[in-house]
Amino acid sequence: MLDFSFQNPTKIIFGRGKIARLSKEILKNKKILLTYGGGSIKNNGVYDQVHTALSGYKVFEFGGIEPNPSFETLMNAVELARTEKVDYILAVGGGSVIDGSKFIAAAIHFEGDPWDILAKHAGLQKVVPLATVLTLPATGSEMNSGAVVSRKSTQEKLAFHSPLIFPQFSILDPTTTFTLPLRQTTNGIVDAFVHVMEQYLTYPVDAPLQDRFSEGILQTLIEEGPKALTTPHDYNVRANIMWSATLALNHLLSMGVPGDWTTHMIGHEITAEYGLDHAQTLAIVLPSVMYVKRDEKQEKIIQYAKRVWNIGPADAREALLKLHPEDADSETAITNKIIELAIAKTRQFFESLGAKTNLSDYGIDSNSVSILLGRLEQHGMVKLGEKGSVTLATSKEILENCL
Amino acid sequence: MLDFSFQNPTKIIFGRGKIARLSKEILKNKKILLTYGGGSIKNNGVYDQVHTALSGYKVFEFGGIEPNPSFETLMNAVELARTEKVDYILAVGGGSVIDGSKFIAAAIHFEGDPWDILAKHAGLQKVVPLATVLTLPATGSEMNSGAVVSRKSTQEKLAFHSPLIFPQFSILDPTTTFTLPLRQTTNGIVDAFVHVMEQYLTYPVDAPLQDRFSEGILQTLIEEGPKALTTPHDYNVRANIMWSATLALNHLLSMGVPGDWTTHMIGHEITAEYGLDHAQTLAIVLPSVMYVKRDEKQEKIIQYAKRVWNIGPADAREALLKLHPEDADSETAITNKIIELAIAKTRQFFESLGAKTNLSDYGIDSNSVSILLGRLEQHGMVKLGEKGSVTLATSKEILENCL
Repeated sequence: MLDFSFQNPTKIIFGRGKIARLSKEILKNKKILLTYGGGSIKNNGVYDQVHTALSGYKVFEFGGIEPNPSFETLMNAVELARTEKVDYILAVGGGSVIDGSKFIAAAIHFEGDPWDILAKHAGLQKVVPLATVLTLPATGSEMNSGAVVSRKSTQEKLAFHSPLIFPQFSILDPTTTFTLPLRQTTNGIVDAFVHVMEQYLTYPVDAPLQDRFSEGILQTLIEEGPKALTTPHDYNVRANIMWSATLALNHLLSMGVPGDWTTHMIGHEITAEYGLDHAQTLAIVLPSVMYVKRDEKQEKIIQYAKRVWNIGPADAREALLKLHPEDADSETAITNKIIELAIAKTRQFFESLGAKTNLSDYGIDSNSVSILLGRLEQHGMVKLGEKGSVTLATSKEILENCL
Repeated sequence: MLDFSFQNPTKIIFGRGKIARLSKEILKNKKILLTYGGGSIKNNGVYDQVHTALSGYKVFEFGGIEPNPSFETLMNAVELARTEKVDYILAVGGGSVIDGSKFIAAAIHFEGDPWDILAKHAGLQKVVPLATVLTLPATGSEMNSGAVVSRKSTQEKLAFHSPLIFPQFSILDPTTTFTLPLRQTTNGIVDAFVHVMEQYLTYPVDAPLQDRFSEGILQTLIEEGPKALTTPHDYNVRANIMWSATLALNHLLSMGVPGDWTTHMIGHEITAEYGLDHAQTLAIVLPSVMYVKRDEKQEKIIQYAKRVWNIGPADAREALLKLHPEDADSETAITNKIIELAIAKTRQFFESLGAKTNLSDYGIDSNSVSILLGRLEQHGMVKLGEKGSVTLATSKEILENCL
């Protein structure tokens, strides 16, 4: 096991009707900036619940934070917050709203150009306290200290991290997710799944508990995910997905183990260039990363195959007997077949939820490879992965496999 | 899934040599009370490492906190802390030292009789900040907000909880556990195992992720525990046990699910009356609780049998065919046999680590039953368990099965 430090002070308030608890958690004298996205919270009752809970507070509003929240939009919120001397931010929405609100919280008191928070990882001295009401389980932002923000003018998508931007509390009411559009439900499940894979599918460091926690989240998403599509109003299904997505990226899984994040880094460039949803890019890139890095990740892929998909040597031999009976006793062929089956299962899982797994599904052709490689190079993404072995040449191979 | 609130602000600093980080975590102007137990930290180098790290600080010492820390002993530390105006407590040791130090931290500024913190669950207004250096993985006290304290004069053993007594940070260096006596290693593994079981082996509430996290810790303890006895200097083995024990009782597993705690409540009385180690009592009581409550816990015991011990209907049928072939096709007989095998495995696991599983192993005979029932009654322990169904009559049955 590797050394680590872990601390996560965010309070999670989980259950039906918990939005009413807002007034118990925020001091009455706070001037609150309520941030949200495209307005779906006005249709599903969340907006009204929040306002009812905050009656008596001084509340300013900033709506319209877009998916892949943009620096340009967020700076308008920063200006409003500065003008009105806001001293609390309540983000109501999914990962984009929460990530954007973390940036707003960090930028308000930042001296200098707030873009430096992202571009130069400038240190933060003072941030405005932040809390969230989560309506889309996916990114884990409600219980972590990171955020990703895009800049429209340069088509950049960059992350920042600070222990100061952990939400003070997050309210998770699974009923707020009952009316999510199918695509967002799917995106959330895929996002959480890939978050786990980035922290799990590396190389063994004798950390069996971390492995089992990761496998537990993967198995839960595999079981519960399809149910969310067919019975979207099932409370427990939504609750299990919500808690899984939060724990998938609240720093716990990554303690003491290496992390990959190749899929995310390449995915970010696809979103920035072509506008695909974040999770759509992950569903495309992960299977390809698994394939191209199959030798380096061999031990963990075999473990993943066995424990998450119940695929072992017997299944591989059976598959070989059908197509390549001459290889059915070759250990190498069996290992390779297990890996192939595990990747296929992963791909099938994403596809079964409605997430496509090829760039061509979105009309993106081979011209994209050099464009995306150029972006990766521009952002210094030339030694990705748990061993820093994903050079631009490896990324080229990965992207070609995404087509 | 049940509703819940979760917050755990303790910082964990995990790895070799991390005791040196003390001076980065505690402000230089603090007056520290260093608390410890019987002095093993003076033999294994931990005491020296702590003093080296704290050079330049004003440090007072209070050693001699005993296993099952006593109110009487702890009040001497409270007096010292008050006299010297201590404003930071650093507990160096295992669960007893940490629990005792939590009580000291709570009692120093308590107005009135500090015994009320335990006996009346009196609310705390102000506590002295506390940190820990863990040397015995077992109780999880290094990352939770509870503590158990005994009173010698009345042979009582009582718990208190407060969010104010979360340690600010805990240093977990697995190398500090290399030289633990065998009995303490065993106790720690049993304690962590039973902590998980108390939160897991109840009834299903459709919370598959919590179940899998629990099963992950149980499996890790089952795999790593025996190795700690045979290769006590194996860093990863010690690290995996240490992290498992911390996560076994840092509140995470219990979120959204019912809890039992019958084993602990009965075990506390055995310790108070007969002086057995805490974990020794748990190894005796748990198998008996599983047996007596097998109907109420049936679904979870079957799941535990399958996922943790890989015992299913086929194993049960095989066992029946040997002894009761006429029952081998009876569903009820198969279910009962699975439960029997799961309890036997649990008992064997404890015994394999050197923990006895019967009261008679300690020379305690059937006279103990009425004595212990009297204590349970005296402490209001008349409706224990996840459904409040463990009356004194049920406890009697459990205790009789412990003999």
